[in-house]
Amino acid sequence: MITVTELLAPVENDLETLLSDLRSLIGAGHPILQAAAEHLFSAGGKRIRPGIVLLISRALASDGELSARHRRLAEITEMIHTASLVHDDVVDEASTRRGVATVHSRFDARVAVLAGDFLFAQASWHLANLDDLDVVKLLSRVIMDLADGEVKQGLYRYETGQSFETYLEKSYCKTASLIANSSRAAGVLSACSEVQLDGLYQFGRQLGLAFQVVDDILDFTGSEQQLGKPAASDLASGYLTAPCFYAMEEHPELKALIDRQFSGDQDLDQALSMVRSSKAIPRTRELAETFARESREAIAWLPDSPSKRALMELPDFVLSRLY
Amino acid sequence: MITVTELLAPVENDLETLLSDLRSLIGAGHPILQAAAEHLFSAGGKRIRPGIVLLISRALASDGELSARHRRLAEITEMIHTASLVHDDVVDEASTRRGVATVHSRFDARVAVLAGDFLFAQASWHLANLDDLDVVKLLSRVIMDLADGEVKQGLYRYETGQSFETYLEKSYCKTASLIANSSRAAGVLSACSEVQLDGLYQFGRQLGLAFQVVDDILDFTGSEQQLGKPAASDLASGYLTAPCFYAMEEHPELKALIDRQFSGDQDLDQALSMVRSSKAIPRTRELAETFARESREAIAWLPDSPSKRALMELPDFVLSRLY
Repeated sequence: MITVTELLAPVENDLETLLSDLRSLIGAGHPILQAAAEHLFSAGGKRIRPGIVLLISRALASDGELSARHRRLAEITEMIHTASLVHDDVVDEASTRRGVATVHSRFDARVAVLAGDFLFAQASWHLANLDDLDVVKLLSRVIMDLADGEVKQGLYRYETGQSFETYLEKSYCKTASLIANSSRAAGVLSACSEVQLDGLYQFGRQLGLAFQVVDDILDFTGSEQQLGKPAASDLASGYLTAPCFYAMEEHPELKALIDRQFSGDQDLDQALSMVRSSKAIPRTRELAETFARESREAIAWLPDSPSKRALMELPDFVLSRLY
Repeated sequence: MITVTELLAPVENDLETLLSDLRSLIGAGHPILQAAAEHLFSAGGKRIRPGIVLLISRALASDGELSARHRRLAEITEMIHTASLVHDDVVDEASTRRGVATVHSRFDARVAVLAGDFLFAQASWHLANLDDLDVVKLLSRVIMDLADGEVKQGLYRYETGQSFETYLEKSYCKTASLIANSSRAAGVLSACSEVQLDGLYQFGRQLGLAFQVVDDILDFTGSEQQLGKPAASDLASGYLTAPCFYAMEEHPELKALIDRQFSGDQDLDQALSMVRSSKAIPRTRELAETFARESREAIAWLPDSPSKRALMELPDFVLSRLY
């Protein structure tokens, strides 16, 4: 099975430069934020989001070289993503993320608010200075979607009456919007045609949805060690995802358990075995496979290059986390 | 003595529309945020910042009428200001602001983070859709300055080695940048000349500094009831302001009290009487008067109108809080 590092090989050096730039940009002259920046932009992370922007940028360049503006766009993407994680962890009161202590648990909520605001502020400043109004609009839409998604997520907890569409919309806002709009923005900076821009957006959108749906499956099938958080913690927190919707179709009695917020002793265990014993997981996997295929098809037109090949493998890589 | 309401009379209806627009914009479909929005955009507030944008916009219009974009700019200004207050209150752990419960004490830190992020996100989205890159740059600079000011404020607590310049820079970031850059942005939307734009910026900058310096005086001379917070709370928290700098010149022994963070029983009382018995307050008042005069002079060129007259009275109004 291919690893992220192998997949991102065409932009490995670019990503290292990006991380060290971000560490110095955020930490410079601000000891309070320095530790948070080290923590956030340490070498360990996967950095798939800026990696995608860099791969698209290289795939679109006739000489395969990156412009300073494409690099900056990748940085902005990672700043916005990180800022939103840091604030979400405060809102969700999460103490770890993928097994690593969150900023607000390692430092405190005040540092987390400050660090997130500082990152958002830097992102919006650098964004404006890319001097392209279309790119500003695409990324400000992302910032709006992220906030909207976080609000929606809170709003629809334990809400069995919500539609499957609402769930997909929340997933779009929280995960797919950033990848879709930053992919399109890379195309804008490369002066792509409208059809190409739509292709890049679709690639990012469907990839982001596949990514989120796979995450939602893993919440039910993964071990605590794999997830870096307790298994089925989404369901336990009342966040209803695709497997849960499909399971409710097969086992309408699941609704009652959710409606009473798993207040009975056995409620959560019962709900889990309903999801796991139903066709919910295979059906959700099919959904993820559809998104992955659509993602791949949307960028088939890119000229062949190591970066294009990496992008074409990304959707399958996302699915491979299931096996 | 003139009141804020009298001063803002030329834009009174505009401000009412603005507040009701903001309440529905933020609260719509988000019950969690609705209560916070009602709380934040209730009728009581002074709304000097959007009031200034509206007055400038009317003063610059040959027919005295406001365009939709000028109105939107005023809204964005208030959104950014409010978002930054809500987050600052979390960072500073403030439970009241001007006598009113803060969002994070009335609701909780999670709602405060969410509400602030949502406001910032809305602001950056509407900003991009004003379709003017110069305006985007001016307001994204404000967002950066606000985050920077909040970081600086934390960094220089109890720091007697900091320069007077550092203090002014922090005041610029936290208070003057928003007024200066939104004043200039109103001019950009009215197609003003570069000289006029500089005048508008200077007006806002010096007015903001006067405003902050007056606030810093009131911290020493105001009563708890006037301030809506305990008197001398800035000094007690280690925030060194103009009166403190001047007092340190006259009473070098004040430094030692601050350096040891008022750990002795009588330290804070002693420090307070040093500031109050020195020439610090009159000297700081002179500084505020200079800023106020410079602010007025910077917009003398505006054509006469009720809005211009209100703007010209604003600096004196700021000073009048001292008497």
